Formats: sequence, C-alpha cells, structure tokens
Amino acid sequence: MALKLHGSPYSTATKRVAIVLLEKHVPFEFIDIDLVKGEHKAPDFVAKQPFGLVPFIDDEGFILYESRAIGRYIATKYASQGLALIPTSDLKTAALFDQAVFSEVANFEGPAQALCYEKWFKSMIGQEADETVVAENKATLEGTLDVYEIVLSKHAYIAGNELTLADLFHLPCGARVKGIFPELFSSRPNVAKWLEALERRPSWQAVKDGI
Amino acid sequence: MALKLHGSPYSTATKRVAIVLLEKHVPFEFIDIDLVKGEHKAPDFVAKQPFGLVPFIDDEGFILYESRAIGRYIATKYASQGLALIPTSDLKTAALFDQAVFSEVANFEGPAQALCYEKWFKSMIGQEADETVVAENKATLEGTLDVYEIVLSKHAYIAGNELTLADLFHLPCGARVKGIFPELFSSRPNVAKWLEALERRPSWQAVKDGI
Repeated sequence: MALKLHGSPYSTATKRVAIVLLEKHVPFEFIDIDLVKGEHKAPDFVAKQPFGLVPFIDDEGFILYESRAIGRYIATKYASQGLALIPTSDLKTAALFDQAVFSEVANFEGPAQALCYEKWFKSMIGQEADETVVAENKATLEGTLDVYEIVLSKHAYIAGNELTLADLFHLPCGARVKGIFPELFSSRPNVAKWLEALERRPSWQAVKDGI
Repeated sequence: MALKLHGSPYSTATKRVAIVLLEKHVPFEFIDIDLVKGEHKAPDFVAKQPFGLVPFIDDEGFILYESRAIGRYIATKYASQGLALIPTSDLKTAALFDQAVFSEVANFEGPAQALCYEKWFKSMIGQEADETVVAENKATLEGTLDVYEIVLSKHAYIAGNELTLADLFHLPCGARVKGIFPELFSSRPNVAKWLEALERRPSWQAVKDGI
C-alpha cells in the first residue's frame, strides 16, 4: 500500500512534503483535500490532523502531520535512497543543519507566508492585499535574505556544501514569493543562484504546478 | 572552559536554552547581552549570530544559534545525563516527537509571542498594547490550546508519556502568557496540569526570574 499524502496542491506545506517524497524516490498516493469546501475542517480529517491543517501522511496506518516533521521522518526512514538530506556524520554538522532548519521557521517562513497570503491568496479569492502588511513583511524578509546572502557566499547550500532538508523546506514558499517579488532574489546573487538551483530540481518541476 | 550562553534574561528563547542546560546538568557561563543598549546588533555579536538575535552558545569555540537547535544539540551531546529529552527508541516515536516540536513553532509560538510582545514587552517600555492584535492572537492561541487539551487528555506530555524537549520549548513563553491571561490555561484542565508540572521543575524555578 503506497504512502498517502493528504493535502492540497495550493498549499506550500503540502508541496514541501511532496518534494521530499520525490527526492527520496518514495511512491505516494495524493489525496486532494478541497480547502474551499472546508474538507480540512471535516471530522474525519480533524481526527487525523487535530489542527485542521494540511498536510498529513498515512504511512500504512501511521499518521503524521507537520510538514517538516514528515520531511525528517521520510529522510530518516529512506536514508539509503536518493540524497541523504539529513547530515548525520557528526554532532556539530547535525547541529548546524538543525540551526538552518529552525532559522527557516523563525526568520523566513513568517514573512514569506504573509507575503504569499496578502499578494497571492487574496488575489486568487478576489480580495485586495493590505499594503501596510506587505511592506512590513517585505522589509522583514529582506533582512533575512541579507543574512542568507552572506551565508550562501560561504557555501552552496543553507546548512553547508550539501543539499539538505533545510534547503528544500524553503523551496515552495520561496518560489511563490519570487513569483511575486522577483527583485528580492535577483538583487542578491548568491540567494538567486541558490533558489534557481532548487527550482531546477526535477522534484520541484514535478509539483510546482500541481501534485 | 564552561559553555557560554550569550543571551538576555528577558528573552524567552534564552530561557529555553537555559532550562535545557539545567535539565541536562551542563554547567554554563551566562553572558548577559543588553538588548536596550543594542548589544545584539553590535558587529562582534552579529559575527556570531548573523540575524542579530539572542541567544547563541559558544561551546569551546563551536558557535550555534536558534534556541531549538541548541536544545537538540545539548540533549544529543549529553544524552546520558539527566532525562533523555529526545526519544530515539524507534522511528515513529521520534517522528511524533518532531511533530510536537514543529507544532510548537507552527501553532503556539506565533500567537503566544505576539501576546507577550503586546501585553508584556510594550507595558515594560511604557507603550499601549494594540488590542486588535491581542484579540486576534488570543483567539488563535485558544484554538491551539483547544487541540492541546485533547492531546494532553491522552498522555501527560505533549509528545507522549515522557517529558521531552517539545514540552520544555513551550515553557518560557507559555509561563509568560499564563501570567497575562491565566484563564487561557485554567479553563483547560489538562493544559493547566501540564504547564503547572513544567513550571514546578527546578530548571524553571532557577531561571524564571533571571538567569
């Protein structure tokens, strides 16, 4: 029985899980949850994901949510397939990987998601963006990307010279923000090169327009 | 040479690291960074923590930031001291631990930090809270705590029957919010019992009023 990914092709968190599954060559069945119809708030969904958020996986009865936790689970379970994605060579390398993972959540995800919500989601449902919120989050994200520009001048990927989950975790939201504000990336050569390399990956090409 | 914790006793992220160090019986030297003077934006600080945020650790020259990454590093390095804090018994238990760790970041930290900022930090510097922001974040946090109440009706701690880093990660911010809005916790018996048990820990008693 193939692993089931319950999520939405519109959700960056769902795409985050899908690209990890593809990078690790794990076959999966995609269950499309209709967010407009509120299927993520239905009792049978909430019984599996109590926050009523996409995605979750069902791996032969093992239910797991939180896209980054799922990424770690998949990369650990299938450690010998595809790229390693989680460095385990030594404690310090693993710690610097965790530093990059939590930096993404702490410094990138918040402002990037806010920009996606204001400029992408609201446009899709015919609402106007709140430009004050946009300006604030754009400034915050610029601060993060200024730091990333320095980090990525030292090594090709965000946690070192190898591609890890920490890079992939940025990709769905990063690509969407780049579509809205390309100058945030093009003005920072190392960040631009890094995101372009991620966007070229077959895993991203397979899910960027739908899962 | 003792591990050095560079941070602020006013910072919940700094307290997060301090309680992990205490739980794991790791001696440390606290370096108080004066946030009012902007010491976290000084060049020698930013050279270690490029986002200009507290805390970071210096473990005999190994520099690491992001409080949750530091927690994992300490709990892994000193696995045999104190409580385990990271379950490693099997892949699924480890994945459910990660699920709880990322749930804290995704569902708890954002609204809880916003409440701390509006009602605690702004009061400290003589500013008025934005009550619209307070109401929004209080409602979001109530939704999270409603889920936690169900989760904590099934097991004593957030990731299962053992205390883990996932519980400790909630403690500094959770205790501060409880000081502002005690009813958020007292109205949910399992959440109340859980946070009270965490607050009773000697590690928290040692750092709650200063490090």
